[in-house]
Amino acid sequence: MKRNKRDILERLNAGEVVVGDGGMVLQLERRGYVKAGHWTPEAAVQHPEAVRQLHREFLRAGADVLQTFTFYCSDDKLELSGNVTNITGTQINEAACDLAREVADEGSALVAGCVSQTPCYLENHNEAEVKSLFKKQMDEFLKKDIDFFIAEFFRYAEEAAWAVEVLKTSGKTVGATMCISPHGDMSGLPPGDCAVRLVKAGADIVGVNCHLDPTACIQTVKLMREGLERAGLKAHLMIQPLGCHTPECNLTGYISLPEYPFALECRSLTRWDVHKYAREAYEAGIRYIGGCCGFEAYHIRAISEELRAERGFLPPASEKHGLWGAALEMHTKPWVRARARREYWENLLPASGRPRCPSMAKPADE
Amino acid sequence: MKRNKRDILERLNAGEVVVGDGGMVLQLERRGYVKAGHWTPEAAVQHPEAVRQLHREFLRAGADVLQTFTFYCSDDKLELSGNVTNITGTQINEAACDLAREVADEGSALVAGCVSQTPCYLENHNEAEVKSLFKKQMDEFLKKDIDFFIAEFFRYAEEAAWAVEVLKTSGKTVGATMCISPHGDMSGLPPGDCAVRLVKAGADIVGVNCHLDPTACIQTVKLMREGLERAGLKAHLMIQPLGCHTPECNLTGYISLPEYPFALECRSLTRWDVHKYAREAYEAGIRYIGGCCGFEAYHIRAISEELRAERGFLPPASEKHGLWGAALEMHTKPWVRARARREYWENLLPASGRPRCPSMAKPADE
Amino acid sequence: MKRNKRDILERLNAGEVVVGDGGMVLQLERRGYVKAGHWTPEAAVQHPEAVRQLHREFLRAGADVLQTFTFYCSDDKLELSGNVTNITGTQINEAACDLAREVADEGSALVAGCVSQTPCYLENHNEAEVKSLFKKQMDEFLKKDIDFFIAEFFRYAEEAAWAVEVLKTSGKTVGATMCISPHGDMSGLPPGDCAVRLVKAGADIVGVNCHLDPTACIQTVKLMREGLERAGLKAHLMIQPLGCHTPECNLTGYISLPEYPFALECRSLTRWDVHKYAREAYEAGIRYIGGCCGFEAYHIRAISEELRAERGFLPPASEKHGLWGAALEMHTKPWVRARARREYWENLLPASGRPRCPSMAKPADE
Amino acid sequence: MKRNKRDILERLNAGEVVVGDGGMVLQLERRGYVKAGHWTPEAAVQHPEAVRQLHREFLRAGADVLQTFTFYCSDDKLELSGNVTNITGTQINEAACDLAREVADEGSALVAGCVSQTPCYLENHNEAEVKSLFKKQMDEFLKKDIDFFIAEFFRYAEEAAWAVEVLKTSGKTVGATMCISPHGDMSGLPPGDCAVRLVKAGADIVGVNCHLDPTACIQTVKLMREGLERAGLKAHLMIQPLGCHTPECNLTGYISLPEYPFALECRSLTRWDVHKYAREAYEAGIRYIGGCCGFEAYHIRAISEELRAERGFLPPASEKHGLWGAALEMHTKPWVRARARREYWENLLPASGRPRCPSMAKPADE
Repeated sequence: MKRNKRDILERLNAGEVVVGDGGMVLQLERRGYVKAGHWTPEAAVQHPEAVRQLHREFLRAGADVLQTFTFYCSDDKLELSGNVTNITGTQINEAACDLAREVADEGSALVAGCVSQTPCYLENHNEAEVKSLFKKQMDEFLKKDIDFFIAEFFRYAEEAAWAVEVLKTSGKTVGATMCISPHGDMSGLPPGDCAVRLVKAGADIVGVNCHLDPTACIQTVKLMREGLERAGLKAHLMIQPLGCHTPECNLTGYISLPEYPFALECRSLTRWDVHKYAREAYEAGIRYIGGCCGFEAYHIRAISEELRAERGFLPPASEKHGLWGAALEMHTKPWVRARARREYWENLLPASGRPRCPSMAKPADE
Repeated sequence: MKRNKRDILERLNAGEVVVGDGGMVLQLERRGYVKAGHWTPEAAVQHPEAVRQLHREFLRAGADVLQTFTFYCSDDKLELSGNVTNITGTQINEAACDLAREVADEGSALVAGCVSQTPCYLENHNEAEVKSLFKKQMDEFLKKDIDFFIAEFFRYAEEAAWAVEVLKTSGKTVGATMCISPHGDMSGLPPGDCAVRLVKAGADIVGVNCHLDPTACIQTVKLMREGLERAGLKAHLMIQPLGCHTPECNLTGYISLPEYPFALECRSLTRWDVHKYAREAYEAGIRYIGGCCGFEAYHIRAISEELRAERGFLPPASEKHGLWGAALEMHTKPWVRARARREYWENLLPASGRPRCPSMAKPADE
Repeated sequence: MKRNKRDILERLNAGEVVVGDGGMVLQLERRGYVKAGHWTPEAAVQHPEAVRQLHREFLRAGADVLQTFTFYCSDDKLELSGNVTNITGTQINEAACDLAREVADEGSALVAGCVSQTPCYLENHNEAEVKSLFKKQMDEFLKKDIDFFIAEFFRYAEEAAWAVEVLKTSGKTVGATMCISPHGDMSGLPPGDCAVRLVKAGADIVGVNCHLDPTACIQTVKLMREGLERAGLKAHLMIQPLGCHTPECNLTGYISLPEYPFALECRSLTRWDVHKYAREAYEAGIRYIGGCCGFEAYHIRAISEELRAERGFLPPASEKHGLWGAALEMHTKPWVRARARREYWENLLPASGRPRCPSMAKPADE
Repeated sequence: MKRNKRDILERLNAGEVVVGDGGMVLQLERRGYVKAGHWTPEAAVQHPEAVRQLHREFLRAGADVLQTFTFYCSDDKLELSGNVTNITGTQINEAACDLAREVADEGSALVAGCVSQTPCYLENHNEAEVKSLFKKQMDEFLKKDIDFFIAEFFRYAEEAAWAVEVLKTSGKTVGATMCISPHGDMSGLPPGDCAVRLVKAGADIVGVNCHLDPTACIQTVKLMREGLERAGLKAHLMIQPLGCHTPECNLTGYISLPEYPFALECRSLTRWDVHKYAREAYEAGIRYIGGCCGFEAYHIRAISEELRAERGFLPPASEKHGLWGAALEMHTKPWVRARARREYWENLLPASGRPRCPSMAKPADE
């Protein structure tokens, strides 16, 4: 089942859709391997089988890229968290590269080495110090076999640009995503200006991830695209939104919701929400389309299924899924059989089963 | 970390809490290994690593019993489903026993060999034929190392009793659960009478599973207990409810909801819902407490954490979890730190983020 | 526009539908003439123009009966309330009869003199004392021109029966309604038994009023009918439910809701809810169909319009109303014109516009 | 109870709060006197007692101004509606002035003669023709005893300015309100520019009415105020919002909601919503504070009660109302007595009692 492993830019330049993977930390928290709060990835060393299996689910769902499980794996964050004692950041970064590589090679996926925001930046804004943290992670990744880099989950364009500048010294392709809303980054810089800054720093692919739902993220990436156009710059666009509905969120996204992080279930996207999202992202000109926290394997599969015509194939996991509910055709209940069609699921307004709960919350940062 | 493996009855007779595992088919559907509709378990042969990993998550979460992944694995159902071609039911049943055993022995869990309702019963009510299906599965289990049996997911007390009668010929302990509401089984037999019938057939443990939420299932098990008391019979009680809120459901449970099976996300229980459930089940005298479809590892961990005083220990996965949100104590946002306490999560009314959706649906069987 | 004024029993015996009026106290509270809490009717003396106008609206809407505005107008209640100083109960009762009579004669409506539960009953259960209160009110009514009596808003069948016994001494027809749920009266007497008791006491018409929504009230009247049938008794059935949705209520009805009495707006019935109610009440064999608190003139008109074929005419106020929204046919917006049809309004699920509010509350008596 | 009748500008110039009245047409529709759709005011001639009584309720609630019941009473609209045959616009306008005057003189209220948008404007934008319609109405008002004019319910600033220009020829004070959202009028003119245009046309008081909820209307009036400030102009501000929650509405307001006009009940403001609104309007510098469709007498009373300290007195209808629920202090149920306090009602999130309905709708103009 191996396909030719072409480079990420080769694919994007050819106009292909690249399906990203889903969220690791939130899902591994639910499976019992990550501690909520600091969300550090020591499970790559402690429980490699769990990380490997989740990578594999995303691969089966059609992911063209597996991101290394190295979220928040800078030395300052690991120390702050208190989550690790006998394990070093170096060990985690290296183990994570091996795991992603091993599973990626079960198909034709690429491996992206990932860095994310550092506590150091917030504490002292010291460029040299922050860059040295990124440099150390990058060097560890480069000892392993990775295909390109992603700098993700940045709330400030400045820090993201610093990360991009470091990663570009490797000569590899760099993608960069920020966890921002249409209002811009935490310093007030609008999305369009953030994108310009990232591309000027060397990013080949720019976009948003996490914090807000698909609707908000698509809106933000559109603003990024417009900013680049105004500046006469070019870059590929990527998106990896939150897998939860967050209609009431502003700057700080789902962190500000009363349900964060232990009662987000009822906000989860259905696979049909993802069909809609994938189509809208595609129509907005975005070609790297994945998910972040809350996106499970079946959400990634839904991206692959929605864009099957554009991509020309279905993912392995579609062997276990009828398109638009087709697998219900033989159900014993006639009313369930009647759901084996696209129109049913597209128009369904799912009930929460929680009549004593509201449909929208008051964000803490409002 | 091995504990002495005492027999299920030994544990229950001593008044201990036995934590059950969670749902396999719904979760493996989301991970890409089970096809919705017929929900058959051929993944035990096709993708053992996926089944093994899910068993392991339940074990880490504190499950004292791992059920073999043999749901709907009778020959008539497998044939009807069209899901398997080169694989036999025998192969699946045997592989499933091996997987459960392998993981159970990583801790001190017991393995329960599981049979469930058959299409044959609905089609012809032929006792000999239905019993021969159960007998074949039992014989396959007995070739492997299993600790006891569970006959689960029965809508008719008669069929469940037939299963129990077959399984009891093995000399092993037998638990039996029905997927019924407080209104009784599909023939109109009240829960109390169902329980009496099952115990008279030889069941050592009786209860309910699947189809309805914890509130409804606890109510049904209470009615079973009352029925047994009236009849002067004794049995242990077990419960493995649906992991979704189904306040509007009647006889056929969540199958009748418009959201079944592909838009149930927003009905999912939070871990805090599970704390409440575990306490209420315990107070109702139920000692075998687990979950069915929708119960993920973190839900099972919530049972273990709620009943930690009664059990005397926490499960392995609690290493990655602060009780009642304690791990949020060091979060960077002050309003998130303020959530590191029981009172916050117990009183939260989580929002759905879906203002255009209702909170309750009209069941199809209404 | 006068029609022949036939007696209430004459009409009911002929199988005709009798349309009742709507709620006085809640509506007059909103208009500024009644004080919430004790809800006493001194406005009949203080502001006759306001009471007259509300009677007139119900008449125009098709009401065949105008109830005297004498709710809670027993001497013990008036004294307890502290609402009246220079006005006596006698004055109010007499003024209320005159007002109802005056407006009733503008059409062909009948006037029903009304008594309701007394604080005295709850305090001492002294039959002689309670009956003397009813007797005093009855005598005041009899000085005026009223057509029949209604004993309404009773929570105990015993007190209601005492009222009926007193009122029957007048020789006039007596209707009796209780504000109870399907669970029965506050002493636990089931609705069927309540009805039997009332009919044995002499009631010609029995039913329920206030406290619960149409769905619950219809269910309760059905239980009353079954009770009468089992006892071999006969009586006409009447219903005057609350004009609010109360799906979560039990014994004490809307009094137990957090919204009582100053935030009930979003629970209000639409006119389309009333169409459905009127049809269901009719199909349940109920022929005296009106409303209580929350039923405004347009709700009563909706009863008249739903049952126009059965009654043979439309009420005066239908001059200002197109059936099923027909008056929207010429609206300037095309999407509003599209609402000029029954199917639209029958299927509409109206939004609350309150995304931070739940759809169901926790009743205080739960 | 007469107070000195000072001119509207005298009051506003002195910094006093002027309480407006509530909505006539929607309320009279429910009472059976106005036909939904064209909403014309022929009831002023046909049923003066009904119009008089509603005026009186607003007066009792504290309204300082009674608007003549002359909504949509231009000759072109009356003809288009088909609602009137034997009655002329002149008759209605004159009768409406008499009714408002009669009731205003029962207290110390002022009478405002009101004109509103014309079909003629939409059809041909002919300034002379449109102005002649306003001139005719004005002349009819001037034959009667009115205190000032209000031009209300305009969707285009141009037409509103034409109305103001005509009305100013009378030498009387003129207020002007538009039924627009923060997005501006239907031609795209922002609220600030609309206000400037109206003041330049001669308006002494400007603001918004109808179509959107208090939150949106306050936002729009603030934009008007900012526009005037930027232009160096001065005017008093007024507001008469819709009495329904419309969080999802844009340009065309509640007309675009699926619930318009016959299922708006569950969107109604409570009196506590009005307290909040009155305070926010006051803090925004608005001094003429009333309501439009959906504002009943008790909503107007709530404005008067919220601003009792600023005004120095309570309205007559507060005799029948305890502030913040105080009248519940003696209720028989302890849980209802507990509601006799401000904190309870301010924090209540009222339930809709409609679990199968959403909390927000999709507007037709979205």
